[in-house]
Order: sequence, then C-alpha cells, then structure tokens
Amino acid sequence: MFYHDKKLQYKVRVDKPNPQFARALQQAIGGVEGEIRVCLQYLFQAWNSRGPVRYRDMLLNTGTEEISHIEMLATAVCLNLEGASSSVIDTIVGNDPILEKIVGGGDPRQFLSGGLGALAADANGVPFNGSWVVSSGNTAADMYANVMAEATGRTLATRLYELTDDAGMKDMLSFLIARDTMHQQQWLAVLEELGHGNQYGVLPIPNSFPQSQEHQEFSYAFVNTNIDPDSPTVGHNTRWTQGTSLDGRSEFREIKAQPLGDEPMLAPPIPQGHAQIEQIEKANDKS
Amino acid sequence: MFYHDKKLQYKVRVDKPNPQFARALQQAIGGVEGEIRVCLQYLFQAWNSRGPVRYRDMLLNTGTEEISHIEMLATAVCLNLEGASSSVIDTIVGNDPILEKIVGGGDPRQFLSGGLGALAADANGVPFNGSWVVSSGNTAADMYANVMAEATGRTLATRLYELTDDAGMKDMLSFLIARDTMHQQQWLAVLEELGHGNQYGVLPIPNSFPQSQEHQEFSYAFVNTNIDPDSPTVGHNTRWTQGTSLDGRSEFREIKAQPLGDEPMLAPPIPQGHAQIEQIEKANDKS
Amino acid sequence: MFYHDKKLQYKVRVDKPNPQFARALQQAIGGVEGEIRVCLQYLFQAWNSRGPVRYRDMLLNTGTEEISHIEMLATAVCLNLEGASSSVIDTIVGNDPILEKIVGGGDPRQFLSGGLGALAADANGVPFNGSWVVSSGNTAADMYANVMAEATGRTLATRLYELTDDAGMKDMLSFLIARDTMHQQQWLAVLEELGHGNQYGVLPIPNSFPQSQEHQEFSYAFVNTNIDPDSPTVGHNTRWTQGTSLDGRSEFREIKAQPLGDEPMLAPPIPQGHAQIEQIEKANDKS
Amino acid sequence: MFYHDKKLQYKVRVDKPNPQFARALQQAIGGVEGEIRVCLQYLFQAWNSRGPVRYRDMLLNTGTEEISHIEMLATAVCLNLEGASSSVIDTIVGNDPILEKIVGGGDPRQFLSGGLGALAADANGVPFNGSWVVSSGNTAADMYANVMAEATGRTLATRLYELTDDAGMKDMLSFLIARDTMHQQQWLAVLEELGHGNQYGVLPIPNSFPQSQEHQEFSYAFVNTNIDPDSPTVGHNTRWTQGTSLDGRSEFREIKAQPLGDEPMLAPPIPQGHAQIEQIEKANDKS
Amino acid sequence: MFYHDKKLQYKVRVDKPNPQFARALQQAIGGVEGEIRVCLQYLFQAWNSRGPVRYRDMLLNTGTEEISHIEMLATAVCLNLEGASSSVIDTIVGNDPILEKIVGGGDPRQFLSGGLGALAADANGVPFNGSWVVSSGNTAADMYANVMAEATGRTLATRLYELTDDAGMKDMLSFLIARDTMHQQQWLAVLEELGHGNQYGVLPIPNSFPQSQEHQEFSYAFVNTNIDPDSPTVGHNTRWTQGTSLDGRSEFREIKAQPLGDEPMLAPPIPQGHAQIEQIEKANDKS
Amino acid sequence: MFYHDKKLQYKVRVDKPNPQFARALQQAIGGVEGEIRVCLQYLFQAWNSRGPVRYRDMLLNTGTEEISHIEMLATAVCLNLEGASSSVIDTIVGNDPILEKIVGGGDPRQFLSGGLGALAADANGVPFNGSWVVSSGNTAADMYANVMAEATGRTLATRLYELTDDAGMKDMLSFLIARDTMHQQQWLAVLEELGHGNQYGVLPIPNSFPQSQEHQEFSYAFVNTNIDPDSPTVGHNTRWTQGTSLDGRSEFREIKAQPLGDEPMLAPPIPQGHAQIEQIEKANDKS
Repeated sequence: MFYHDKKLQYKVRVDKPNPQFARALQQAIGGVEGEIRVCLQYLFQAWNSRGPVRYRDMLLNTGTEEISHIEMLATAVCLNLEGASSSVIDTIVGNDPILEKIVGGGDPRQFLSGGLGALAADANGVPFNGSWVVSSGNTAADMYANVMAEATGRTLATRLYELTDDAGMKDMLSFLIARDTMHQQQWLAVLEELGHGNQYGVLPIPNSFPQSQEHQEFSYAFVNTNIDPDSPTVGHNTRWTQGTSLDGRSEFREIKAQPLGDEPMLAPPIPQGHAQIEQIEKANDKS
Repeated sequence: MFYHDKKLQYKVRVDKPNPQFARALQQAIGGVEGEIRVCLQYLFQAWNSRGPVRYRDMLLNTGTEEISHIEMLATAVCLNLEGASSSVIDTIVGNDPILEKIVGGGDPRQFLSGGLGALAADANGVPFNGSWVVSSGNTAADMYANVMAEATGRTLATRLYELTDDAGMKDMLSFLIARDTMHQQQWLAVLEELGHGNQYGVLPIPNSFPQSQEHQEFSYAFVNTNIDPDSPTVGHNTRWTQGTSLDGRSEFREIKAQPLGDEPMLAPPIPQGHAQIEQIEKANDKS
Repeated sequence: MFYHDKKLQYKVRVDKPNPQFARALQQAIGGVEGEIRVCLQYLFQAWNSRGPVRYRDMLLNTGTEEISHIEMLATAVCLNLEGASSSVIDTIVGNDPILEKIVGGGDPRQFLSGGLGALAADANGVPFNGSWVVSSGNTAADMYANVMAEATGRTLATRLYELTDDAGMKDMLSFLIARDTMHQQQWLAVLEELGHGNQYGVLPIPNSFPQSQEHQEFSYAFVNTNIDPDSPTVGHNTRWTQGTSLDGRSEFREIKAQPLGDEPMLAPPIPQGHAQIEQIEKANDKS
Repeated sequence: MFYHDKKLQYKVRVDKPNPQFARALQQAIGGVEGEIRVCLQYLFQAWNSRGPVRYRDMLLNTGTEEISHIEMLATAVCLNLEGASSSVIDTIVGNDPILEKIVGGGDPRQFLSGGLGALAADANGVPFNGSWVVSSGNTAADMYANVMAEATGRTLATRLYELTDDAGMKDMLSFLIARDTMHQQQWLAVLEELGHGNQYGVLPIPNSFPQSQEHQEFSYAFVNTNIDPDSPTVGHNTRWTQGTSLDGRSEFREIKAQPLGDEPMLAPPIPQGHAQIEQIEKANDKS
Repeated sequence: MFYHDKKLQYKVRVDKPNPQFARALQQAIGGVEGEIRVCLQYLFQAWNSRGPVRYRDMLLNTGTEEISHIEMLATAVCLNLEGASSSVIDTIVGNDPILEKIVGGGDPRQFLSGGLGALAADANGVPFNGSWVVSSGNTAADMYANVMAEATGRTLATRLYELTDDAGMKDMLSFLIARDTMHQQQWLAVLEELGHGNQYGVLPIPNSFPQSQEHQEFSYAFVNTNIDPDSPTVGHNTRWTQGTSLDGRSEFREIKAQPLGDEPMLAPPIPQGHAQIEQIEKANDKS
Repeated sequence: MFYHDKKLQYKVRVDKPNPQFARALQQAIGGVEGEIRVCLQYLFQAWNSRGPVRYRDMLLNTGTEEISHIEMLATAVCLNLEGASSSVIDTIVGNDPILEKIVGGGDPRQFLSGGLGALAADANGVPFNGSWVVSSGNTAADMYANVMAEATGRTLATRLYELTDDAGMKDMLSFLIARDTMHQQQWLAVLEELGHGNQYGVLPIPNSFPQSQEHQEFSYAFVNTNIDPDSPTVGHNTRWTQGTSLDGRSEFREIKAQPLGDEPMLAPPIPQGHAQIEQIEKANDKS
C-alpha cells in the first residue's frame, strides 16, 4: 500500500525557465528511458514476484522511490514553462551549437493540452507505452532489464545535464544521476547474489531449462555472416570468438554462416483465404 | 550491404499444425522479446556505432543472423496454420491444463489479414513497435540492453518449448535457444572487454561523466521507503545495503526515505492558458 | 514524495483460479478505464496544478490511493493464474452463456512474457498508453475527465463482478466499486465548489474566455443534420432544444444544418511537393 | 446513412499563412481533444445505443456535425501551409514570447508525407488513436465522457485562439468555440433528463448495480494517504470530506489510509515458466 | 458539409448472433483494411486535394459513403452480440475446422468496455491508428493507396463471408463486396485518366521529378541479392528482368548486387553524448 | 538465410551536416513511407508466399535490397548530426522559405536517446509500427500495396531531394529515387503477369471469389452522396461514371445515394452490462 507527503524527495529549482529544456525533460518522464517506465517496471516486478521475499521487498522500495522522481521531473517541466520573458535563456547549452538545432523548439502540447504542464509522453510527444514495462517472471532477466533501464536512464540524465547551465536544474540532475549510479549497482548486486557470488552464475538465463535440450554445438559459437573474402573478419583477437566462455562451461569458437535448412515449401492457399486464382492453380510452380 | 540465399538457417518442420501455437509463436516474431526487435536493435547499434570498429562488425554479424531467425519463425507460423484437420493437435501441451486456457484461441488476423500467414505483431496481435529498438550511443548501455533482450528472449523460447510436443517445433526451438545462450555470452564478453577484463569496470554507465558532478552521498545508498515500523525491512543481510559496492569505489549503506525538497510552488496560470477564473484568482490559496 | 508498506489496501483472495478472469482483470489495470490511467491522471493533475492548493492536495491523496488499487488488481491476476487444475472454474459466470464466448481464452502473454504475472496492458494485451492521461491545466475540465474515468471505471468493475462467482474476487470488487462511488462524488463536489455551489457555475469551460468573443448565435443552438423530411426529428420535447440553457444564460433552440461557408479553394501544389504534373497544370480545373 | 455537399459549415479564411499554426491546429484535428475523436465517439455511441431512441438520434446529429468540423480544420491547415513568403507571419501571437518557443517549428510530415496537407495526427505528429473513442454502453458514463471531451476541446480552441492574430482564423475559432459551448450544455442536459431533473440523479454510475453489493462503509469516505503529521491535511473545510453527499444518500467523511489486507503471498513459479532455479528452490524464503 | 438520415445504406440482419463473428467483424471496422481507414483516407485526400476539382468531388462522395459502411458494420457487431443463447451458433463456418480455432473466442472489451457494442479497434482489439490514413498530395500515389485499400478490404470481406453461414450477414457482405469491386475500378479509372488513357502514363510517380536527376542506370535494373551459385536465380523468363519496361521508356535488365559505397566511417562520439570512455579514446580503432 | 558485407550499397557522403535534415531523413527510415516498412513488407510477403515460387524469390531479393537502403539512410542521419559548427548549413533549401519553418528543428531524441544516431522512428519521432507491414496472402493485393509503398516512397524521396543542396545527399537520393522507379515498375510487371498480360486481368481482387455471390447491381455503380441540387455533380464526363468498366465486364453508371436498409433496432441492454436503469426501462422508447 502507498502513502505520500507534500514535499519533494529533492529540491527542484529553475532560475531561468526554458521551454526547450521543458521538452527535453519529457524524455526523462515519459520516454523509454524515463521514470514512469522504471517506476511501473519495478512495481510490476514486485507485484508479480515469485521466489525469495527479499527481492519483492527491494523492488517495492525502489519502485516507490521512482514515483518521487516522476514528481520532481514534472515539477521541473512546469517551472521551465513559466516566467517573465526577459529571464528566458535563448539557447540550449553545449560545446557545439549543433545541439541547439537538434533540440529544436518546445512541445506545443505542453501548452495546448497541458496549459503549461508536464505530459505522460516523451520529448517528441509520443505517449508513454506500457509495452516498455518488463516483468518476465525470471528474476535474472528482470535484473538485466533493470540494469539496462538505469544505464540508458543515467546516460539520458547526463545528456540533459549537458544541455542546461541552470544551476537549479544541474543540481536536481546531479541528484538523479547519483540515484541511477546506485540503482545500477543494486540490480547487479542482486545478480551477483543470485549467481552465488558470481554474476555469470546466473547464465544461461533461464538457468532452469536443461542445457541438454538445446543444440549445444551452437551454444558457444559466434556466427559470421560476412561474405566478403577480402575483408578482415570480426573474429580476430576478440573475447567472443576464442577462450573459455564466461560461464566457464565451454570454449568460444567462430563458424561461418551457412544454411542448415532447406528452402521452405508451404502448402497452396486454402480456398477460403481467397488468394488470386493463379496462386492456387500454380502453387509451388518453379518455372 | 546485405545478401541472401533461398534456404533456412536451420530446418523448420511441423508435424501437427496447431493454430494456437501459431499465435504463441508471434510473440517471438513481433513481440517485445522477439526477433524483429533484436534484429533491428543490433543493426541500428551497428549503423550508429562510434568507437572501435570491432563492435560495429560484431553487431552487423549478429543483426544479420537475426533476420534469418525471423524467417524461420515466420515459416513456422505458416506451417502451423496449414493442414488437414485430422492431424491438428487439440491442446497446448503442459503439465498443467491451465496453460491451455491461458493461450486461448488463435489470432484471427493470421487468417483475416494474412491468409494464413505470419504478422509483424505479438501474440496478442499488437504490432511491432520501433520504440523497442535500443541504440543509445553508449556501447555499455547497449550491451546490457542486448543481454536483457536475449535473457527475456531465451525465457520466451523455453516457454514456447514447453507449450508444444511437436518434434519439429521442439527441434527448431532447441536451435534458437542455443543461439540465445551464445548471444547472452557474447554481449557479456563485450562488457568484460570494455571493462578491461572485469564487467564492473564499465560502471557507472556512462563512465565518461565525472562522478564528482553527481551528489555522491546518494550514489551508493539504498533508499528505504517502507514506513511500517513493525515490518522487517529489506536491508538485513542483503548484498545491496552493506559491503563494498560492486565497482569497488564505495560502501553500500541504507537510508530512510525522507523529503529533501520543499512542497512545490508553481506560478499562477497564464491568461492565455484559459484555466478557470477561480484558479487564477485564488492561485496558491491555502485555505 | 511517496512511501509504502508491504500490505494491501484491501484483502485479495482467489478461491478458484481462472485464467479467463485474469485476462478480463487486465482491463481494470492497463485499460483505458483502468487504474494505471486514473493513478497517473490524478498525480499529473496534482503535479501540474496551478490554483488553490486544496485541489493539488486532494489529487495527491487519491492518486496515491490508486497505486494501491493497481497493486490489488495485479495480485488478483497472479492469483487467478495459479493453482491446481482441479479447482479451476471452467466458465465465466453470467445469466447468458454468450458472455463466456465473448471473453474467450486467457492472455498468452501473461504466461509467455510474464511467467504467470500481470501486464501493463488491457484485456486484449494492448499496452497502456500515456495519451489517456488527461491533465488540461483547467481544473473544471480535469474534474469532468475524472468523473468520466470513475464512471467508466465503476461500470467496468460491475461488469467484472458479473463475470465471476469467486467469493474472494466479488469481495475485492465490492470494495473497488465502493471507492469508485466515492471518487465520482468527490470530483463532482469539486465542480460544485468551483461553480460557487452549483456545478453549472463552471460553464462554459473554460470560463475565463470572454463569451463575447464566441459567435454567440451558435452557442445555444442544437444543429440538426437530419435530411429526411419524413422522419420525426430529434428535437421534440427534448431538454436540449428548448427551455433555458443549463447555465441560465440563454435559451436552447434548434436550427437546421446548412453551410455558412463556401466550397474551399486551395492553391495549386508547389513544385517542391512533387504532385503529378496534371495536378499542377490543371489546378482548380472544374471541367 | 450519410450525405454531403461541397461547402463548408462555416467559412475558413487565412490571411497570413503560418506553418507553426498549421502544426498547432493538428491538435484540434487528430489530438485526444480533437474533432476526429468526438466525431467517432458520438457516432459509435449512436450506433451502439441501447435505450430510448431520442439519445441515438441526438448523437447522430452531433456526430455528423463534427465531420464538418474536421473538414473546416483540415482546410485551415492547408491554407496555413500556402502562400508567398512575404506574407508569412513570423511568430505565434501571445502576451508572452515564451509561447513562441513552446510551439516550435512546423510539422515536417505536413510537407514530407502530405505535400502541404493535414494529417490524421496531433500537434506532435502522433497519430489519432481509436482507444480515445469512448462508447461504454452506459449513457450517463458516455455523457460525462462527452462533457469532458467538449471541455478539453473548448479549452484547446481558446488556446489556439490566443496563438493567432489572423482575422480569418480567429473568426473560424470563435464559431467552433461557440459550438463547444452548446455541446457542453447539451450533454449535461441529457444527464439532467436521465437524472429525472437533477444531474446527480444519475449517481452512482452505473445506477443499475445494487449499492447493497458494494462495501458501503467506503462509499462516501475520502481516503487520506498523507503521512506527514506536521502538514495540514486536505480535509479541512472541503466539500468532499463533510456534509451530505451530492446524491443525498449519505454523509461525506474522511478516513486515514491504512492497509486492510495482508502482505500478498504468491505460489512458487511453475516449472514451465522457467524462472531461475533459485526462485523455485527458495520460494517465499524470508531470510 | 455533412448530413445524415436515420436509416442504413443497406439492410443489416443477424439471424443467429455469434460473438466470435462479432470479433472478426471488428477487422472490417477498425483494422488496417477496415472502413474507418478508407473513410478518413478518402475524406482527407478530398480536403487536402490540390489539382482538378473533379477528384476532390469524387473523393468526397466515396468518403461519405464509407461512413455509412462503418455504421452498417457497427450495427452488425451489436446484433451479433445479442440474443438468446439457444440460437447462438457454436462455430465459425468453413471447410476446415482449423479456422474455428484460429478465430478463437470473442473480444472481451466488446462487453467490458462497450456493454455489447462495437469498438474503434481491429479483430485483436488493437485501436484504429491514424497513421494508416494516406493522403500524399500526389493524386497518383493516393489512387494506388486507394486501390490497395480496396483490394485488401475486399479480400477481408470475402474471408468474413466464408466464416459465416448466417443469411443476413452473407447478404450484407455481398453488398459490401460489390461496393469494393466498384471502388477498385473507380480508383483505377482515375489512374487511367491521369495517365492520359493509359495507367502506366502516371509513371514514375511522381512524374514531376525530372528523371534526368535520378541515377538512371539503376532505374530499370532488377537487383539480385542471391549469393547461392547453385540456386536458379529469380530472373529467368520473368517480366521484370527483360523486355521493355512498362512505361515504355527503357529495357528491364538484371544486375548482381554489389556494394558501390565504402565501409562507413563515423566521427568519434562527442563528449556531451557520454559514450563510454573507451569509445572516445579508441574511436575507429581497427585492431 | 541472410548475409552481409561491411560496405554500403551506394556511397553516402555529407558535406555540410544539418540536424534538421537528419530529422527529415527519419521519415525515410521509420516512417509509413520508409524503408523499414518496405523491407519487412517484402520479406513477410516472401516468407508467407503461397503460389508460384518466382514471386517468393523476387520478393526475397528486393526485401534484402531494402535492408541496405535502411543502412544507407541511417548512415546519412549519423553524418548529418556530426561536424564543426562552422560548416553547418543554416536552413533547409527550397524556393519558398515556408519550407524551412515547416521542417522546424531537429529531433531531440537523436541526441537524448541515440547519442547522435538514427532511430527506428519517423520525422516526428513516432516509432515504426508493424501494422504498416502488408502481407495479405493475395499476391495481387500485395503488389498494389507495394506499388503504393514505392509511389509514396519515391514522392517522399523527391521532397527530401528538394530540402537539401548538399551534393552528397542529393547524390544518395538520386540513387534511391532510381531504385524506387524500378520497384514501381517491377510490382506492376508482376500484376501484368498475374493478369495474363493485362493488369486489369487481376480484377476484382480477389478474383477467386465468385462475382455471382456479390450484389452485382452495385458492382459498377458510382454512388453520389451529394445532396445539393444546385451543385454540379461529380459524374459529368468522368471515366468512372460512364463507359465500359476497366475489367471489361460491365458498364459504369452513377446512382443517387439512398438508404436501402431500415433504421436499426437493437435489443435492450442486458442486466450484466449495467447500463443506466433508464436505458433498460425505456428501451427503444420513441417519445
């Protein structure tokens, strides 16, 4: 069950409102790397959790923390849309003016639909999409999904940091970046615990499917699809084509791509599917 | 540049067509865990790749291999939709008949829109969505996204394996499961290489943002949002609340959630936003 | 800022697991009438709130309550997907067996993607979409959006109630239905307060746009587009074609639809738009 | 059945084409507050209508009128994309130049995909989505959905009005704003009629579910989730925490949020779901 | 401007309600091949039309007709969801029982969200999407889009015809199939007129771009990407690899796929993009 | 099965990077007219192909070629996002400065999410959507879908050509435009072959449904829905209202729209659907 108070987890201050930055911030709210995604992802993983209770508990904590991050960012959007025009900064900050051009203008829906408010959408106004919420039922797979979310999320936050020189915004982002640092650590710590002290112990995910049932001659082989005889291949001196596999169970090797199956042969169309007559009459004709 | 031949990477055979299984297979084609996603993800990562050439090359190979996997699965869908009714298996296989009920019927659009063919959609007919294609510009973030994709992808493949007792389908899936085993290894091998022989060497992602610019007092602290004084907290004996952090740079600790910011205070609505008059006249009224 | 404890707002019990019902429950989680929508809607309205503080506070409370409702429903989905097959109820309950057919089978992604867990999607597996989150910046418009959400939400909950005879599920739903009753009341109470003791006092929304700037001859006129001279028109004895308008500012009347504008005349295509030559050469040709 | 003539319902004139405004207008065509939505919403409500014929008839009329509104707005987009550059107005109009920045540039797809034409999309190019079409089968719920659509729609139209000083566009919008005034009235008039002369008579929606089957101790209670003992709570002197409920059936009261359910306990993962081994072996472990 | 009457364009009768068929019919309402798509497509093409007035007029007529088709199909859905259970037909009709399995159950949202009504969605409940509305600004491109819409639409209608033996439904579909026959003819007739009496006269679309500005050595060459030396190539005796091109301007030929560009070389990551340090330091490293 | 080499199909060079153009190019990658769509469309048509093998083979070739086109365009996006600011061109090129305004700024997600890379999205950042992939099971319908895709695709490419004066970009586009010329020819050549030497021989699509089962009095009749007695009707001297139909099977004629069906009459709401009481009690009341 959930509770709230009226304060923010960390202070949000905007000295010079900037609608372009208000648009960019939307990516951290409703984008695929954003806080609504991680919030719902951690909470659904908690609610769906089957296995040791400690993981459910941990996920509930961090999922709840993320609601507070959405709240901070929504507040930051609102504050960036306010204010006397004289104090508006004209440009996105960066070493290269090309960034100013890339960010473009603001998001018209923040005014048209929101009356100067935040949206449940990304920096292009594309709505948040529930398909981004990963809760697989396999804790190791979920943890890698969480590491990935925090890795792309922290990368996004550092890019936002580069786009502003507003002291308040930089301060808020330096807090959020720190939290992403911890969250990366935390999900990897679960993987280490799950793997009995070694992250690679969780492999292959899922580890409950007997490897004897996979075609093991292909389980540690890098497939090279490059057909150019004159081009240096990818495999020289790379970690993924030679040496012991990371899980310690086999040796990496490289094989040349080649078909192991035949040309597929499908049945003719059924009458009720109403293909063209010529498809039915000349099915599998090879002339 | 890309080439093809007319054969399949691995043989695809269906002994007893099963429309319910044809529906379930769609998840592996156009679902968030499916092959269109990994195919485009690896190829976009290759095309957008900035940094050592070896990673671009590797991504091109595996991205190209995944096209062949979509081809195999689309063929499997077509074959599962064919055939004399007498040979149709009636039920999804499993130890628990509840799975039969969960899978439900087939996908009507495989007939209505496809004439007994595969769709670029998931097991519920939801179309493939390009937002699932992660190409972040940060190779470590990308690699975790790839591990996650192969972890959820292999989990999906093993669940499909459990739903069928068709020998041909089991054989095809045992090949795809083996490839997912390798792909998990391969992306982790890149992370190990990127981290100078230790996967945790890539942390925090991105490692090019100076940690001095984050609020470091929050960088290794687990935030506990649980307010129940009688409930055991998550932090006892867990790897993520004590001991050295995985990157070796700090010690984990646990802190109780508390607000560090004030109650937010927004400016009154601007006239052009046409809020209700009462909002404008009583802005920030606290009565 | 947000907090949690580990218990549920109300007890969730499933006596006879039913995967069909687990699918139907998804509509109340990730559907357009569902709890993720109202949760985010009330929270975004709170975070974007400009005007009297009391409305922000109220929205924060109810938005927070809704997170607990998602939690209850996700738990209910998980429990409906469990269990010994012998205790599975075979059919959706109702006075008319047609409902059983309509509900169909379960959602295969609850197994394939979730390992028997809830998804951030509706009863057809369509992902939750952020575009459903209404936060307009106008409190009266927001309140009607909230009444509508609770009206369709309570209707959905009563339909779910009819589909099950599981005592635990009926008990949970009777709690949620009661909460929807209150929430309908509560948003209407805000409208009454905003309208100075009369809900119609908020009209027209927004009330901050001077009515002198609208074409007032069309502001209280019902437009009848029916061209059938033999058919009784809609307007006889209806509240919306005669009598004083609800806001007391005018009289309703009915007018026959007729064009007040001309046939539109667009400029020829510009060369850079590469229309067909014939479009450019014969622009606005009327032969 | 439907018919047309070649003229517009109201005149559409653009004196100074403005591509930025052409983008903003898209919100009123294909946005969630736009005319495609209300058009399809009223028509689907009519086609699905069960109950007194008068409501079906009314909905057909207004749904048909809305097609003419889409036509007007699409024409307005086309005209705003035309014209000699010398007559282009440079900026969006408003009291605050920040609005110019928010609106940003035009929509490139109006040229790239449309050859200077309107799209079935919103102001950010997000396509119209059929999930916005509400037709619930409950007339009272539908009417609140319609009031909400016209309230957010009229708010949008007034904001567009503020963004332009083109006399033709202002004239067109003052017509559309007037129609939205009427439509708000009209749906509320249905609610009053349905409620036997009092809008609150329709409560709770649906009114055909016996209130004896809801947990009535929670039906008129405001739940306060705020845990801050020092913060004034929301409930003082507010209409929704004291006094007679709007439907006259009870008294409002306020209760402190507290869990009435236990910590949820899920069954262990089933083998076919291929969780990690550790989840299965240590299911519900609390250490 | 648009008008209506209260009758249907063609009679809609359902003798034996069938919820499975009600689901399948959704594809013809809100699916990519459905009537909402063609309705909006023809109307947007009309409203955006630049060029001879006759095409705008024609499009308005047929776009208006399609609204009446949506109305018929929505009515058919409602009627298929009604009725005494004794008269319900149990199965989808067809020569092959596999079709029954493919169609599966009904759409739960027709009850849960619609109260036994039609939705603006396809047969899998995926909402109608405005991106399907093609209005390109080039009349020839639009006409091919329309032919395609009617070709897939008529194919869908014939498949629906095969799924039912309800006399009323077959009668309605035979009307709609006839209309699709005409509409295919009609758009092709425009292409013939646009091409000065020969459909191929419209090629290449757009014909207003000077062919001298394209790389003409590739304009009539079939590119063969097949690398298998033992496999018969596609080009033998096919119309698209030899003989005069359809537009009469050149000769078809076949060329073997080969790269004409170099391996791409991108600049190193910029610092503000926060790639991993190793990407920046070893940019374009080829070891 | 699929293969690659490391070079590009055609050279991609950018002299003056331009982020606005990088945004516009996204339409050709992930837009509805873009290369991901045609790539997947041709490949799914190949994989689902039932009928003569030659069509499957042809589709495989061109589908494979399109992957190389995505690769070229993604490379072009990356190059347009690079470079010293001094060489950045300031404006989109065109005869009319209005185009500059329409295109607007860049796509912030190319930086925020991609680190200066291409996305699987369109020029507004809307993700690629699998619903655009047409594979109908009817080869004639598929070929028209392909002609349409290449017609809108080539139109898009010519518009992009007009937006740039970068010599490298113009060169790349002139290659892609040439390929679109060929692809239009090629799909029409299949239609001619399928139609036994005459494209109209494929009509009506599907040609395997007996025309005797359609209501043939409506199969060649243009329906005029225009009710204005004073307005010249569309039918004068137009190819689609008089003369022999294109398939040579009938004569075109024009009929005035009129209802052939009755006003629809639906059953009252069922109790489990929880309409308002008044709907149930006054069902089909006509007062």
